Amino acid sequence: MKILVLGGDGFCGWPTSLHLSDAGHDVVIVDNLSRRQIDVLLEVESLTPIATISERLTTWQELTGKKIGFEFLDIAQDYSQLLEVLKKHKPDAIVHFAEQRAAPYSMKSSLTKRYTVDNNVNATHNLLCALVESNIDAHVVHLGTMGVYGYGWFGTAPIPEGYLPIKVNTPEGEIAREVLHPANPGSVYHMTKTLDQLILAFYAKNDGVRVTDLHQGIVWGTQTPQTVLDERLINRFDYDGDYGTVLNRFLMQAAIDYPLTVHGTGGQTRAFIHIRDTVRCIELAIANPPIKGERPTIFNQVTEIFKVRDLANLIAKVTDVKITNLPNPRQEAAENELAVDNQQFLALGLNPTTLSQGLLDEVRDVTNKYAHRIDTSKIPARSKWRNTPATKTAVKQAPPARSKRKIRT
Amino acid sequence: MKILVLGGDGFCGWPTSLHLSDAGHDVVIVDNLSRRQIDVLLEVESLTPIATISERLTTWQELTGKKIGFEFLDIAQDYSQLLEVLKKHKPDAIVHFAEQRAAPYSMKSSLTKRYTVDNNVNATHNLLCALVESNIDAHVVHLGTMGVYGYGWFGTAPIPEGYLPIKVNTPEGEIAREVLHPANPGSVYHMTKTLDQLILAFYAKNDGVRVTDLHQGIVWGTQTPQTVLDERLINRFDYDGDYGTVLNRFLMQAAIDYPLTVHGTGGQTRAFIHIRDTVRCIELAIANPPIKGERPTIFNQVTEIFKVRDLANLIAKVTDVKITNLPNPRQEAAENELAVDNQQFLALGLNPTTLSQGLLDEVRDVTNKYAHRIDTSKIPARSKWRNTPATKTAVKQAPPARSKRKIRT
Repeated sequence: MKILVLGGDGFCGWPTSLHLSDAGHDVVIVDNLSRRQIDVLLEVESLTPIATISERLTTWQELTGKKIGFEFLDIAQDYSQLLEVLKKHKPDAIVHFAEQRAAPYSMKSSLTKRYTVDNNVNATHNLLCALVESNIDAHVVHLGTMGVYGYGWFGTAPIPEGYLPIKVNTPEGEIAREVLHPANPGSVYHMTKTLDQLILAFYAKNDGVRVTDLHQGIVWGTQTPQTVLDERLINRFDYDGDYGTVLNRFLMQAAIDYPLTVHGTGGQTRAFIHIRDTVRCIELAIANPPIKGERPTIFNQVTEIFKVRDLANLIAKVTDVKITNLPNPRQEAAENELAVDNQQFLALGLNPTTLSQGLLDEVRDVTNKYAHRIDTSKIPARSKWRNTPATKTAVKQAPPARSKRKIRT
Repeated sequence: MKILVLGGDGFCGWPTSLHLSDAGHDVVIVDNLSRRQIDVLLEVESLTPIATISERLTTWQELTGKKIGFEFLDIAQDYSQLLEVLKKHKPDAIVHFAEQRAAPYSMKSSLTKRYTVDNNVNATHNLLCALVESNIDAHVVHLGTMGVYGYGWFGTAPIPEGYLPIKVNTPEGEIAREVLHPANPGSVYHMTKTLDQLILAFYAKNDGVRVTDLHQGIVWGTQTPQTVLDERLINRFDYDGDYGTVLNRFLMQAAIDYPLTVHGTGGQTRAFIHIRDTVRCIELAIANPPIKGERPTIFNQVTEIFKVRDLANLIAKVTDVKITNLPNPRQEAAENELAVDNQQFLALGLNPTTLSQGLLDEVRDVTNKYAHRIDTSKIPARSKWRNTPATKTAVKQAPPARSKRKIRT
């Protein structure tokens, strides 16, 4: 199958591209290298020493004999070129990761809010518009987020996979319907994924575009069976206050004996998935497209659920590091419960990597191995969620790391 | 009250600006004159001879002694300037009409689809972002559309004003909630207003922006008590296939004895409002802002409901012109029923202008008076809703007008 991976140089995109290439698909990465450029602007680097895209692709071909194509392109900005790329490659499926994906970054300033909205909305809309214009019937596999739903909607009922069964009182009596689950995004980034949902639904309805939307939990882990083959294929590991997800940040902090920074009570309950399962889910989604004319298929791409403080406790126990509680800059409930329906991927054969299975590998092979590359000045989260005095006090810095690092292997 | 009217040179914006100025508010129009520029590109003109914005403002000041300010600005493109304008004027309220508002235009080509999404989303988001950055607590009154809801959701139940009471089965039993009404937009234009809803909701929740969203029906009528004072203040009247709304197009066709073009069966049921009521609703919305921290207030800004064929029959009866049925290029149900809840504006004292009261004025004072300005080549609707052979046959041209015009007064 010919597959374009938009954003194929990023954290999810790169291992997905390798996984799909390894599985025998003809893969072309489309990327503007924006994630690397944001690193430059934020003055941070991946903990792992990621190779350039050219070196990555050359290495993959050397090792496996498989060629992955590359198109340097900003799909949000250069529509004509996007159209040319679609006509040139005539893909059967398109995996769309080409969006700014960090919530804290999206709340950092007016500039980053506006970039996130402009980039993400136009990327998604340009893609759909170009598919219609070029009359290419490619299956669009879009990466959404569990954050589109928000938390605490309907008691302990598991969040359904995209569509919510509801009942409404009418003059004819109670009517039952299934509707897109109500949205309650917690950041500008999450908001853009709620906008994507509506754009995808419109093009599925009006133009028969086949769409799968994957509402993914927080991804953890770094390596897949492909990225681990050679250090030049290594996946990125973000730990800074903007792009580092909660589990990565804890692991990195543990590696340098820096107290684990839990914001608020740590009672935030979130859904997680290992990067190895992400790439398998993408493959399963590609193999199971919706029928033309149907509403988008929505999967909840999650495998485990934890409270943030339980994650911290687990890592503290394994690594013998302390925990610090800091005020929470985000506008979110201090405590929430969460149950998620993920039956669709399990029914398709996904066999998840659990935290208890994968955590020690991650500590040994990634965070401890590359701990010497950590810049401790990049650890605090600095994004303010809103302009209020209460929140301003909440962004004071984390305590400095202890000067001596304990590296465990 | 200091009020900015974004898009204040347009069809709704201009009479709103005059109405608010007449009511004693300090009004500043912010506009990039995009509506006039689109006229140039489409090679069409308003049926009514609209004056330039300078002449409009000068005339208003001459007649009434009241000054309306003007800022030439593209709020979707020039964020820095928008920020400056907000800081300079420190508005108490902002009426946001600065969006591309024609459904057929939004479906015309990839260019117009992309313009509509890029312009409308960034206009709304830039405004909210700039209010947060500048710390100006202005009440945002946004013009939405009834088209966000779609049709035929819940039997004969009236469409509620924005929020739908639902019941959901959970392990704790049935839970009742009120959620944003599900969206089912019929065009890219309508889709952008469903995106706006989510953006507005996020900024209301996260930053306490006070928002009123007005889901307006199809506006008909041309003049208000202010625009009728002098021909240089006249409001625009669009009749072309892109910007002409259904009632305007029927009236214009009747004025030149051109058969009224009903697309499909004419069984589409739609909600309507006279422009005189639009401007009153805006004033009522401004006078009744939501409390800071509340979800956006949503009004259904409609006063009457008709089937398209009933409108055609009514006008045919009054003007003695024939009706032609053409295939429908839109992706919509041939027939639908519609009931709308509009209690909030009625409770605030709105006393609607009905079609039976206003139709003859419109025929006599607008369409017949300016019938000599009609360019009959601009009458057919040419936008295709999708790329399918079935739809391509549906965009064949309307029959040519009879050569001799009957003008009635």
